Amino acid sequence: MQKQVEYEQAIKTKYPEQVVIAIAKDKNGKANPVTLGWTMIVSGAPPMMAIAVAKRHYSIETIRHSKCFTISFPSSEMADAALFFGSKSGRDVDKFTEFDCKTESAKEIDSVLLSDAVANFECTLESETAAGDHIIFVGRVVCSHINTNSKKRLYTVGPGHKLGTAN
Amino acid sequence: MQKQVEYEQAIKTKYPEQVVIAIAKDKNGKANPVTLGWTMIVSGAPPMMAIAVAKRHYSIETIRHSKCFTISFPSSEMADAALFFGSKSGRDVDKFTEFDCKTESAKEIDSVLLSDAVANFECTLESETAAGDHIIFVGRVVCSHINTNSKKRLYTVGPGHKLGTAN
Repeated sequence: MQKQVEYEQAIKTKYPEQVVIAIAKDKNGKANPVTLGWTMIVSGAPPMMAIAVAKRHYSIETIRHSKCFTISFPSSEMADAALFFGSKSGRDVDKFTEFDCKTESAKEIDSVLLSDAVANFECTLESETAAGDHIIFVGRVVCSHINTNSKKRLYTVGPGHKLGTAN
Repeated sequence: MQKQVEYEQAIKTKYPEQVVIAIAKDKNGKANPVTLGWTMIVSGAPPMMAIAVAKRHYSIETIRHSKCFTISFPSSEMADAALFFGSKSGRDVDKFTEFDCKTESAKEIDSVLLSDAVANFECTLESETAAGDHIIFVGRVVCSHINTNSKKRLYTVGPGHKLGTAN
């Protein structure tokens, strides 16, 4: 049976929620990673993925500037990186300088991949749509990569950015 | 270390993936549920959620007609319902007649809730955006409900619509 409650209470049932790290370069060529829980696949053929980014985030500028971005699936060992990239702003710091996280060049777009991630998807910007306090960016996947070792994905498993595995 | 692979191989790392059941009434007043794995929250204030629906699906017509829809988080006990609602078309059958699944009326929109779900969110249609072979519908959450009993969400845990829990 259902009972009506405030949204803030109901949405606590969403966990585990997948985590991705989106990366785009700013106008100075600095690659800026941001941790996001609001993401989904949106098309099978051609393959496309969407992310929702808060309007106040520096990532909005970087994605609009470079018109491409990486979607990286962090591994369960990357919780500290995910927390750091999700709590600092690229306006203030160079996140990849401040936090040691191995990267490698993307193949088809001007961005970077996370070497220790489960997978990385290189996306070209397909569209953007405003939705409340966020912007939905849709990216077309033009190149895909997986880790040479088997890894588990990182999830938010509870309120307060509690991270872990889900399986 | 990353190695480049086909998208179809890389995307197999996405699991577990959350499952929702979206419900909208058609022009005859028939409530039509569809099971979807491609969904995300897109705004915090006001609360909004998005779903990606295949362009060929009957649900496209029902959502455009009623301009509102329910997003239901099925419980781990609802795997059979999720498989049924995801494999039949509302063009051919009345899914709620063919498969026994308890429903109750929504409060703020002309739709139904799933009584045994973990949670139900009543949404008014905010926007739609085409993305490849799918349409992204954004809904504004206008009323929220949770189950009076504690339940676990249903996830797709592997290829071939393998369903289960994730925690």
